[in-house]
Amino acid sequence: MKNKPNILVSNDDGIEAPGIQGLVEELKKFANVYVCAPYRQQSAVGHSITIFYPLRAYEHYMNGELFGMAVEGTPADAVKIGVLFFFKDVKFDLIVSGINHGANTAINIIYSGTVSAATEGAILGIPSIAVSLTTFKKVDFTVPSKIAAKIIKKIWEDENIKIHHGTLLNINIPSVEENEIKGVKITKQGSSYWEDAFEVRSDPTGREYYWLTGKMVIKDNSTEFDITAVSENYISITPLHFNLTDNEAYLEIKDWKIEL
Amino acid sequence: MKNKPNILVSNDDGIEAPGIQGLVEELKKFANVYVCAPYRQQSAVGHSITIFYPLRAYEHYMNGELFGMAVEGTPADAVKIGVLFFFKDVKFDLIVSGINHGANTAINIIYSGTVSAATEGAILGIPSIAVSLTTFKKVDFTVPSKIAAKIIKKIWEDENIKIHHGTLLNINIPSVEENEIKGVKITKQGSSYWEDAFEVRSDPTGREYYWLTGKMVIKDNSTEFDITAVSENYISITPLHFNLTDNEAYLEIKDWKIEL
Repeated sequence: MKNKPNILVSNDDGIEAPGIQGLVEELKKFANVYVCAPYRQQSAVGHSITIFYPLRAYEHYMNGELFGMAVEGTPADAVKIGVLFFFKDVKFDLIVSGINHGANTAINIIYSGTVSAATEGAILGIPSIAVSLTTFKKVDFTVPSKIAAKIIKKIWEDENIKIHHGTLLNINIPSVEENEIKGVKITKQGSSYWEDAFEVRSDPTGREYYWLTGKMVIKDNSTEFDITAVSENYISITPLHFNLTDNEAYLEIKDWKIEL
Repeated sequence: MKNKPNILVSNDDGIEAPGIQGLVEELKKFANVYVCAPYRQQSAVGHSITIFYPLRAYEHYMNGELFGMAVEGTPADAVKIGVLFFFKDVKFDLIVSGINHGANTAINIIYSGTVSAATEGAILGIPSIAVSLTTFKKVDFTVPSKIAAKIIKKIWEDENIKIHHGTLLNINIPSVEENEIKGVKITKQGSSYWEDAFEVRSDPTGREYYWLTGKMVIKDNSTEFDITAVSENYISITPLHFNLTDNEAYLEIKDWKIEL
C-alpha cells in the first residue's frame, strides 16, 4: 500500500468548470488535492506561457470553502506557479489536468490546453495525466469523474504499473453510459486532422470578421489509435512526450550537404 | 531548375518586426512571397488557435506598398487563414515562419509561436520551415535574412534534398559574425530545460503580482543537438513532427491491465 499521494489539479476550462470540480471531489477520496487552475476558459491555447506580462492570482472559494488558486493565465502558467510558488512546500506525486469538456485525440492534442497543463507537469519532473471527456454537449461529470479517479488511483497504487519522472499520459473517456464502456486501451496518437475553412461574416458596422470552422477527417481505423478507441467506446490512454524530433526524417536528412 | 516557388511567410513577433521584413525582402529574390502574420507580438503562445472568438485582419502597408495581411490572432491562426482564405487561390510550395528574435531550441520549441506557425503549415500539407536567430538583443537582421534565404533556396532547388508533404524544419541561426559561422548541422531537439521561479512584486495599490523568471539548465553536450550546435556557432536544422506519441513508453505500458 503506497502513501496518500499529493496531487495538483489544473485544467483549461477554468477553475469554475464542472469538469474540475467533479474530478477534485473524487480524487480527494484517496489523495491530498491542491488546485491551481486558470481563472477563465483557456481552450485551444496550446502550450502557451505568459512571459511578457506578470500573472495575477486569487484564492477561489466554493460553498464558503477554499477550493484552490485561480490564475489569470494559461494552463501551463497555472501548473508552473502552483508547483513552484503557491504550493512549493508540497512534494507532488502527480499532476492531473481536466476533466476537459471535449476530446483531446489525434491532431487536437497539439492545440490542447488540457494536455499542455500535463506537459508542463512532466517538464517539471512530475508524472502527469490529462483527462478529457469526448463531448462538447452539456453533461454531468459525476460518472466520468469517478472513472477518471479510479484509473488514476489504480495507476498510483498498482505495483505493476510503473510511472516515472517524465511520464505523461493522455486519457480520453468516451461520453457514453457507464455500462457501454468496453474497457481501457493503451493507444497511440491518431493522424486524423481538421479540414478547416473560414466563414466570413459582417459586424453591425459592416466590417468583415472570420470564424474558423472545420470538420475532422478520420484517417485512423484501428483501436490502436486514440480517436478510434474512444469512438468504439474504449477509454484511451496515450503516453506522450515533448521531444518533437522526427527521428525518421532525421536519419533521412542527416547527411544533407548545405554549403553557405 | 525548379519553378519559382510560392512562399507564405508568417512569424510570431508580429508583422512589423524587423525579422520578418528582412526575410521577406531576401525571399522575394527567388520566390513569389505572400505575407500573413499576427498583428501584434505573440511570443510563447505555443500552438494556440482562436476558436471562441472571430478573427479580424487588415491589409498592412509598408513604405506605401501592400506588405501583407495582419491578423489579430496567433501565428497558427495567421497561417491557417492565409492559406485557406486570403491566398486560397495560390498553391503554396513552402511556408516560412520567422525570423524569430530569440532561439527556438531544446524545450523552447514547445512554447514557440514561430515553430507553431510552421507546424500549422505542415498540418496543412505544405513543407514548412521555422527560422530563429539566437539572441534577444537588438540586432540587424540583414545578414541572418540573407543566410536564411540562401538555405531555403538551396532546400528548394537542390535535387538531392527532398522535402515532402509533412516536412517541418526548425532552423536556428547563431547570432555571430557571418565569418564565425562554422556551417550547417542537421540536429535533434535537445533536452535542456528551464529552471523556473516566480518573482513576487507589488503593484502601486499594494497587491501582489508574479513574474516568471528562469535559467536554462544545459543537459546537452554534443552538436548532434540543436542547442549545442548553435552554441558552437553552427546553424542548426532539426526535423520535427507533431505526433507526440512516446513510442518507447507505449511499448512499455501497452499491456497494462486496468480493470474498471
